[in-house]
Amino acid sequence: MNPDTAVVTRSIQKSTSEGLIWQDDFLAVEEPLEISISYLSDHKRIKKNVSVTMRTPSRDEELALGFLFTEGIIRDFNQIEKVVSNELDPNKVTVVLREGYVPNLNTSERNFYTTSSCGVCGKASIDAIHVTSSFQPSSQLMTVSDQVFLKIFSELNSRQNIFESTGGLHASSLYDIKGNFQMIFEDVGRHNALDKLIGAAFRSNMLPLQGSVLLLSGRASFELIQKAHMAGIMIVAAIGAPSSLAAELAESSGITLVGFLSKEKFNIYTGFDRISKL
Amino acid sequence: MNPDTAVVTRSIQKSTSEGLIWQDDFLAVEEPLEISISYLSDHKRIKKNVSVTMRTPSRDEELALGFLFTEGIIRDFNQIEKVVSNELDPNKVTVVLREGYVPNLNTSERNFYTTSSCGVCGKASIDAIHVTSSFQPSSQLMTVSDQVFLKIFSELNSRQNIFESTGGLHASSLYDIKGNFQMIFEDVGRHNALDKLIGAAFRSNMLPLQGSVLLLSGRASFELIQKAHMAGIMIVAAIGAPSSLAAELAESSGITLVGFLSKEKFNIYTGFDRISKL
Repeated sequence: MNPDTAVVTRSIQKSTSEGLIWQDDFLAVEEPLEISISYLSDHKRIKKNVSVTMRTPSRDEELALGFLFTEGIIRDFNQIEKVVSNELDPNKVTVVLREGYVPNLNTSERNFYTTSSCGVCGKASIDAIHVTSSFQPSSQLMTVSDQVFLKIFSELNSRQNIFESTGGLHASSLYDIKGNFQMIFEDVGRHNALDKLIGAAFRSNMLPLQGSVLLLSGRASFELIQKAHMAGIMIVAAIGAPSSLAAELAESSGITLVGFLSKEKFNIYTGFDRISKL
Repeated sequence: MNPDTAVVTRSIQKSTSEGLIWQDDFLAVEEPLEISISYLSDHKRIKKNVSVTMRTPSRDEELALGFLFTEGIIRDFNQIEKVVSNELDPNKVTVVLREGYVPNLNTSERNFYTTSSCGVCGKASIDAIHVTSSFQPSSQLMTVSDQVFLKIFSELNSRQNIFESTGGLHASSLYDIKGNFQMIFEDVGRHNALDKLIGAAFRSNMLPLQGSVLLLSGRASFELIQKAHMAGIMIVAAIGAPSSLAAELAESSGITLVGFLSKEKFNIYTGFDRISKL
């Protein structure tokens, strides 16, 4: 992430036991991103605004791809012709589909909007909030050592630089099954951080991420598990707590879910047999 | 909040330095709530699904009212005939408007959806994400002692029981200008916790909340400041960091914004002259 776009400086007053002190402070940047999709229908090019999300600028193209993929609107790497950033307005990005492909917008009038933690926007009813993954859980049991979780916890702490300076960013990071670092993305929205990560994997044609471990810097909500499931991720660890529905979805999707990961310990919520004790 | 509906028990494994231990753990409940609005148009009663939000069950009627109010869809206490919970499905609630009132849905086909942190859903463009408050900032300068912030920090810590047991809930709480407790609401979504609080104030015809201090258990995002602004709140304190856009909106709305509130100190981001040093 480019720290120039992710952080702004602001003059603030610090109230301490010694009194009020003027000081410069770093704030995580939050700005709206409009995500559009462009495709050919009856030989006419159609552009639709799909979402406005409050995000931290940087890796907007990955964010757009990850959002559209985890929402089930685009399904395949080969559908994408290009991703276009708007030169005049850095808060707009358009994903252009190749000829012959149309986005799965369900209903043509669907025009939904999200924010930094919004993953079920635009669904027509409660029944529709479960987006179906096109990846099936692997039938082969992949095991991961409990030590890997402790290792990636330390790893994340050493990398999350912007978070440290602003206290306001979430991170999603990816590791291989041995705990070796693959990638990290940060954003004011934990939801966007994960979309950026999945978008980057989608763009590199790395999906499904069945051999990877996903680490979330905050809590694990239903939507984050849903996004992980869409990307074929089988092992998710969170520094924070999972919600009831997150644990239920992880269980029904065959995902191993770890929560409250810290320096020395963690909780296992689902998929117990995938974790081996050294 | 009723702890029976807010927390579920789950058998988990704890991985500690002593090995794996089976144990019961408490998880914050996350379930979808479908919010609908019912009104008369041309002598026909119309019911529209407005939103699905992932929330912690409890105070759903306040959540629905607060959401509709902070989105600008309903404006006035007197518009409301009743709020109806669905007896067959506890995840559905309908706000019924009195005859003569129609909701401000902007476009009739608007059908938007939110999650636990979604406040700008359904807006037609980036330009429209600023919802206009019907309350003007008071021209009279109200000051609050810096000691009040330290007091409400301790106060919140002593009250947030469910958060303590699950680690998964956000709280919004309200205090008077002396720091005396008024109300608290908890939810998996910080956004919902604030909607519940504003909905409760709306229902009791307490808006605008110009003489109150709002305390947020987490970070202050743009959307939370927008909601506070809609309710006429002039002083907002957050335990976590504000985003850049939250500070900008607070400044332009005349809101005093405090962040990183802790036991002994805090940062003031905007509205400095409203805070007096003892």
